[in-house]
Amino acid sequence: MKRSERLVDMTKYLLARPHTLISLPFFAKRYGSAKSSISEDLSILKHTLASNEDGVLETVAGAAGGVRYIPFLGKKHSEAYLKELADRIEDTERILPGGFVYLSDVLGSPSDMQRIGEMVATHYAYKNITAVMTIETKGIPLAEAVSRFLNVPFVTARKRGKVTEGATVSVNYLSSSSSRVAKMELPTKVLPKGSNVLIIDDFMKGGGTLTGMEGLVREFDSTVGGICVLCETTHADKMVDDYLSLVKIDEIDTEKRVIKTSLGNFLEKTDFNRF
Amino acid sequence: MKRSERLVDMTKYLLARPHTLISLPFFAKRYGSAKSSISEDLSILKHTLASNEDGVLETVAGAAGGVRYIPFLGKKHSEAYLKELADRIEDTERILPGGFVYLSDVLGSPSDMQRIGEMVATHYAYKNITAVMTIETKGIPLAEAVSRFLNVPFVTARKRGKVTEGATVSVNYLSSSSSRVAKMELPTKVLPKGSNVLIIDDFMKGGGTLTGMEGLVREFDSTVGGICVLCETTHADKMVDDYLSLVKIDEIDTEKRVIKTSLGNFLEKTDFNRF
Repeated sequence: MKRSERLVDMTKYLLARPHTLISLPFFAKRYGSAKSSISEDLSILKHTLASNEDGVLETVAGAAGGVRYIPFLGKKHSEAYLKELADRIEDTERILPGGFVYLSDVLGSPSDMQRIGEMVATHYAYKNITAVMTIETKGIPLAEAVSRFLNVPFVTARKRGKVTEGATVSVNYLSSSSSRVAKMELPTKVLPKGSNVLIIDDFMKGGGTLTGMEGLVREFDSTVGGICVLCETTHADKMVDDYLSLVKIDEIDTEKRVIKTSLGNFLEKTDFNRF
Repeated sequence: MKRSERLVDMTKYLLARPHTLISLPFFAKRYGSAKSSISEDLSILKHTLASNEDGVLETVAGAAGGVRYIPFLGKKHSEAYLKELADRIEDTERILPGGFVYLSDVLGSPSDMQRIGEMVATHYAYKNITAVMTIETKGIPLAEAVSRFLNVPFVTARKRGKVTEGATVSVNYLSSSSSRVAKMELPTKVLPKGSNVLIIDDFMKGGGTLTGMEGLVREFDSTVGGICVLCETTHADKMVDDYLSLVKIDEIDTEKRVIKTSLGNFLEKTDFNRF
């Protein structure tokens, strides 16, 4: 196989396997090439991704070493995308009764999920996340997208028991949208003890649901490695301190038909230079 | 930019945008290269993907032409994956009361969703699908994965109304698992008239839920372009005739603790040679 062909195949192979160590001998065998050629190929790959701020190729030296593709979306691309997203959401047609915002089109758009997944995975690339958690239903596409770029499993907490999931662990939580105590549960088998969990959700008001998921993580003898939401609203008392948000709903008024958005705290809280 | 660098960037760019026409002038401008060089680059890309049965690069001639990356997983890879998946599912630990099968680990695994998404998108690549539909909750990761490789939006029907989705259209359907008439709904805004919808779900018993989704598609003045499920069980009366399945549960007995799986009809119903 010629260099040009190897580069195409190598790029596809690595991009499909983020956060996965692939050894040089593996590539050498796959293409019937010398390790030195593979080494040069990988240099080209590494350099090209880096100059476009479009991904990082980590090299792990030694006998048990190899390369690892780390998804990375640079500050410029992230900022451009978030501004466009915040603009798209700032649309009076999206105002729903109760101060909710219609986001089904965004959450059902593969390209948006791809962008958001890559962006969030950039922030958490080196935070040793071992699982992503969300609660049904609208957070699921977000959780799947992020888990894909971090190469970890994602788990979905349920608001109602399902007959198709076996034994579960449940916690009670105070839902800020309904101001009542509710229950959420997760199958006992999905989350190993000692997991480091990234909690993802689409919409945060007071943070009651996120607090519930934090409680669920604790029930599994695991830690919360981070919390990230697509949209946060300005709410008097946030029950959660340390979280990331992509877009902020500064103002929403159902009667006056007003909605105002701005960027969430994602950019200011993400260190793009550590790559 | 040198050829080797262009190839890396081009591969990444196209793979992230399946079923999307990208013009040669776009690439020529992006890399500051001559169109003839870009043309040669794309030939290499096309050839390399084809020889590994790992994707198709379509060329559209003419002034409004360009290239389009079509995800394609060949018969050999598909068969190997499906056999391994059927084996993994054939596990007595997965047997749940009521004849259900525990699949949460598979549905929460990004690599499985990636494989399945690419495989299903291979079958439907040229069937003019314009949207993917599923019903909450477990079908959502499947629907998102498939929609990503087809580059179309995905929509999620609800079993219970949500306050966060605005006006909806609903239909009644006979749920084969609970033998009662139930309701499912979809926001009016998510599916344009004249859509050609691919219906996706995780588990099919009698097909009642799928029939409900077919009804929902009709309410939106749209057509059903296909139906595909991850697992089908052997059930006396299937309410749906024309569907694809990846894995078949031939036998499941909660008391005797027996589960037997085999390949679904996906391989026999997919024409891998038309690419």
